[in-house]
Amino acid sequence: MTGPTRSHRRKSIQTTLVPQDLMGGADTLAGVWTAKIVTLFPEVFPGILAASLTGKALKDGLWQMETIGLRPFGEGRHRNVDDTPVGGGAGMVLRPDVLAKALDQAARGTPRNPARWPVLAMSPRGRPFDQAMAQRLSQAEGLTLLCGRFEGYDQRVLDAYGVEEVSIGDFVLTGGEIAATALIDATVRLIPRVLGNQASVEEESFSTGLLEHPQYTKPVDWNGRKVPEILLSGHHANIAAWRQEQAERLTKERRPDLWRAYCETHGKDPDGDQEL
Amino acid sequence: MTGPTRSHRRKSIQTTLVPQDLMGGADTLAGVWTAKIVTLFPEVFPGILAASLTGKALKDGLWQMETIGLRPFGEGRHRNVDDTPVGGGAGMVLRPDVLAKALDQAARGTPRNPARWPVLAMSPRGRPFDQAMAQRLSQAEGLTLLCGRFEGYDQRVLDAYGVEEVSIGDFVLTGGEIAATALIDATVRLIPRVLGNQASVEEESFSTGLLEHPQYTKPVDWNGRKVPEILLSGHHANIAAWRQEQAERLTKERRPDLWRAYCETHGKDPDGDQEL
Repeated sequence: MTGPTRSHRRKSIQTTLVPQDLMGGADTLAGVWTAKIVTLFPEVFPGILAASLTGKALKDGLWQMETIGLRPFGEGRHRNVDDTPVGGGAGMVLRPDVLAKALDQAARGTPRNPARWPVLAMSPRGRPFDQAMAQRLSQAEGLTLLCGRFEGYDQRVLDAYGVEEVSIGDFVLTGGEIAATALIDATVRLIPRVLGNQASVEEESFSTGLLEHPQYTKPVDWNGRKVPEILLSGHHANIAAWRQEQAERLTKERRPDLWRAYCETHGKDPDGDQEL
Repeated sequence: MTGPTRSHRRKSIQTTLVPQDLMGGADTLAGVWTAKIVTLFPEVFPGILAASLTGKALKDGLWQMETIGLRPFGEGRHRNVDDTPVGGGAGMVLRPDVLAKALDQAARGTPRNPARWPVLAMSPRGRPFDQAMAQRLSQAEGLTLLCGRFEGYDQRVLDAYGVEEVSIGDFVLTGGEIAATALIDATVRLIPRVLGNQASVEEESFSTGLLEHPQYTKPVDWNGRKVPEILLSGHHANIAAWRQEQAERLTKERRPDLWRAYCETHGKDPDGDQEL
């Protein structure tokens, strides 16, 4: 496959929040990072992803998305997609046969290798999504995302299709669509040219393993609250040292988990200010 | 203040994704949980929150939202809201004077007590948002959320206004709007009557401190893949024990952090199968 000359392929996509089908078969751009989303609410996409930088990149054909509605694959006259849990319990579980049909449709034209095309299900039971995973996903050719509702997915379909469950945090959402939106946003902004030069710089603040130091801007004196003197000194090494201290202090205070991991990789004593 | 009879106060809100001002001054319902959102992109709200159960609850007046655009508070002819970081560095920082004006507008008619009305800023540097925090926020009268862009907020405005930074995960988003949407969704679904009876049940799966056991539904035999025999036994105690085992196994495998916390509160040995 020869690489497409992306700059000549723009799709006319309005950056409104009105639901739209961004794929439409023939319009699919080969070689462009693609999110395929299996959902009961296809109309909520691209939603917020059509705004701002991700929206501009979508218009410019730097990435694309396809929604696969779950409802048309439902059973019977009412197109049921879920049923009660076997063994009892509250809520409803998405049926394996219905999910499988939607996943089969999503799989058309995609590589079977999960490194090239991961198939993920948004779920609070999943592996925590983080910046390293966003990096990895941005280097795939695309991905398929299952958005759950109710009590979740029948386990057999996750097993049969090698679906990896992913969580954006230890909280319960009404559905996976917001989690999918967060995952796609964090991933798409790492695709080359989506942010331009900004990208590499911003990632650094996460890849150091520390929370970012406090930031200050103009006015230097705001209602008597002044910017810390050292930031006005022009002494770059001192400023860098102060920022590093602040980042370490903040991380230690707010995120003991990140602080311990940082100390391990940097040979520091997590309970002291001294290097080991 | 006498409690409003909410059932007679419906607002006519279309459940589309078209941007809309859901507050409009006089339409504000007293005593209804309210999210005030300070953002450069007011048009992306309510977005996905207008769909599904949160959308129905919004229409029914069980909660409401107000967006406060940051741009009108900007400086000069171009309404600049940000400037370069003092002390150097990449990116742009939101100005304290501009943020303060927006926060002052948001504060109109809200209690000053942060337990009754928390003021939060979405930020990867923040305290991790979790289900316990969602519970706490759902019991407040409402909240104000700052959505950041660029490198973040001038620290002085966070200090001056007692703003608590909150993070939905260890990943970088193009802006705080998606994080705010996740926080609001997780919180609103805990407001009485938004989910009805489902709510209490679903929360339980998180409040046990374990990831949820696998779920199965019909068909019992799907392409030769069968539901585990025990779930068909009708023996409730055995089913409950099996589910507990599965939940513990999953948590141990996927989330050593949750597993350690669970073992501490339940007097279990995290490395063994025996109780201490």
